[in-house]
Amino acid sequence: MRRVYLDYNASTPIAPEVVEAMSGSLKANFGNPSSSHWAGRPARAAVAQARKQIAALLGASPDEIVFTSGGSEANNYAIKGAFMALRSRGRHIITTRIEHPSVIQPCRHLETLGAEVTYVPVDCTGTVDPDDIRKAITNRTILISVMHANNEVGTIQPIAEISRLAHERGLLFHTDAAQTVGKISTRVEELGVDLLSIAGHKFHAPKGVGALYVRQGVALESLIHGAGHEGGRRAGTENVLLDVGLGAACELARPRIGRQSEVRQLRDLLWARLLESFGNHVVLNGHPEHRLPNTVNVSFVGKVGADILSKLPDVAASTGSACHDGAVELSPVLRAMGIQPNFGMGAIRFSMGMDTTSKEIEWVVDRLRQAMGFTNESCMEMEEDEFVPDYSI
Amino acid sequence: MRRVYLDYNASTPIAPEVVEAMSGSLKANFGNPSSSHWAGRPARAAVAQARKQIAALLGASPDEIVFTSGGSEANNYAIKGAFMALRSRGRHIITTRIEHPSVIQPCRHLETLGAEVTYVPVDCTGTVDPDDIRKAITNRTILISVMHANNEVGTIQPIAEISRLAHERGLLFHTDAAQTVGKISTRVEELGVDLLSIAGHKFHAPKGVGALYVRQGVALESLIHGAGHEGGRRAGTENVLLDVGLGAACELARPRIGRQSEVRQLRDLLWARLLESFGNHVVLNGHPEHRLPNTVNVSFVGKVGADILSKLPDVAASTGSACHDGAVELSPVLRAMGIQPNFGMGAIRFSMGMDTTSKEIEWVVDRLRQAMGFTNESCMEMEEDEFVPDYSI
Repeated sequence: MRRVYLDYNASTPIAPEVVEAMSGSLKANFGNPSSSHWAGRPARAAVAQARKQIAALLGASPDEIVFTSGGSEANNYAIKGAFMALRSRGRHIITTRIEHPSVIQPCRHLETLGAEVTYVPVDCTGTVDPDDIRKAITNRTILISVMHANNEVGTIQPIAEISRLAHERGLLFHTDAAQTVGKISTRVEELGVDLLSIAGHKFHAPKGVGALYVRQGVALESLIHGAGHEGGRRAGTENVLLDVGLGAACELARPRIGRQSEVRQLRDLLWARLLESFGNHVVLNGHPEHRLPNTVNVSFVGKVGADILSKLPDVAASTGSACHDGAVELSPVLRAMGIQPNFGMGAIRFSMGMDTTSKEIEWVVDRLRQAMGFTNESCMEMEEDEFVPDYSI
Repeated sequence: MRRVYLDYNASTPIAPEVVEAMSGSLKANFGNPSSSHWAGRPARAAVAQARKQIAALLGASPDEIVFTSGGSEANNYAIKGAFMALRSRGRHIITTRIEHPSVIQPCRHLETLGAEVTYVPVDCTGTVDPDDIRKAITNRTILISVMHANNEVGTIQPIAEISRLAHERGLLFHTDAAQTVGKISTRVEELGVDLLSIAGHKFHAPKGVGALYVRQGVALESLIHGAGHEGGRRAGTENVLLDVGLGAACELARPRIGRQSEVRQLRDLLWARLLESFGNHVVLNGHPEHRLPNTVNVSFVGKVGADILSKLPDVAASTGSACHDGAVELSPVLRAMGIQPNFGMGAIRFSMGMDTTSKEIEWVVDRLRQAMGFTNESCMEMEEDEFVPDYSI
């Protein structure tokens, strides 16, 4: 084994079926979907077909799907679009402290435009207490945005419960489902959401395409104004090639949602082997059960995650989230969970995908043991003073 | 000849060289460019290489290129980003009446947020008079946005002259170059622009990718907030595949800029044949000389463009711009040019590209003559009353 990829939460390889669908679209759909002539019609049909495939995965209607350039645009569109559309009714938004930057930063931006934002805390497993959301609601609240699962630790939030709360008060509810679409069920009726963000490259579509589910009847101010594409909601000539890719990835994901146990077994195998190898020198971050079936975020106590990974150049994994790579500081997510620095700095996220094998898991654990000088014996003999945090990278 | 595509201003086929570049990127660059491990590095390098290729075509520096999802996003980012960044200095924007909807609509949106926008007129050739721009400048003006060439009639604006005016007054100058990049020179120093929008699919890159040139030192408020991608200017995981495609298309376009005469000959052949065939029943729209080398927009006097094209199902061309297809009303561009309805309703835009041949041109003109019952004889015999406008489609 030369190299192992365990960073599927950062990005995934494009699935062969997705490549095939896009290859078929490369020449056939060169026309502009807005053109009514022979070159435009197949392109328009291809986008319509992709929209149907996405809607089918979510249990939504095709006209509730707005294509975007990815998860970040979808989150920006949801948050800013709701605020701009509803700001005459109120200017208060509720979100959490562990959202992706593409939710947090639009909120920060809206604060400069008069928005009031409550960032509710999470517990040590990274879980939001719906009661904290309930208490934060005021008569000026217009929108609640809580991510479906966290990108770093994988904790899954009680979305259905929170969306019920929101709807009891007549509020819009948005969830960033970038990390769950294609991994666990994201049926919009079950979740009860009004807005749901999708990022294609997290489940084997290419980078650069995503979508926002917008429940029928919900009106948002556009983020990209111009011609009447996407039912007048998002201007710009359709990204036909990648829209087709996103559709194919959704098609591919549908039967997989029922087969989560395969990747879950690998996830549990990895954690079991880490625990076996490193004993109380390793701690699991995130919720022990309500967690993505592919995510193991562990802290090597008193170590620095990036330092460990630098000794394993053949293993692709992440310290914090990929977006913040390079910066050696405790990730905001782990900080919000109350993780102490000597635990949090040693965090590594391993995230698995459809190509991951148990052999790879075993190999990575072996490599970790070698890199950290752990044998079964040394594990038992570790001294307490070896746990002094080392921030020197 | 079964079908002819003369709608390159709406969209272009992806060039084989661009497909090849993207194919090479499909598997090699599956990692997240933000990841510092082995899977992320090649993806990051591919985006950097594409950025260099785009910069080279524009005579810009790579860090002045911000990738976007296309021309519409680039225009939205330029207009809204400049307004939001500079609104404490002034709230006045100057643009023209013939801009693309992705410039006009952001301006309309900003008007609801306190912007004051002057839409300067154009003459009957679709040309902006720099003097009209000069007169419109007030001490509250912050931004001037004038498209490089019009998408419908192809008229090229005196950008260098207008940008000089803007800079004399210390104002930002933006040009929507969606229709010129890859067709004529778009060197930013020659044009003197601060901001320049690119749309990949207009010059053989895929739909769904574009860029905004942002002159060093010009600070815009982001349109998509989140993590620190694109130097903190545009959040969202990079669209590696299509960025590579855009880079390859720019590489391909560089030597072509010097060979405009090839397509220009076809353009002039088409107009000569149309004039020969339809005499004074056909009128050229747009500037007779300062016009895109690939665009022939003609009015069949007293006819309806869509009606004519419906008789030529094998010919892909456009009435008005593709974005407005289906709506039988005089295009806002032709209206701004003062074109009378019985001329303007009969407008058809033929736009040529690198695959167009003179044989295709001849064939299309023959088909037009047959469809409209024009032989050399009937042309001479046409009665005046045949020119009554026919809006019945």
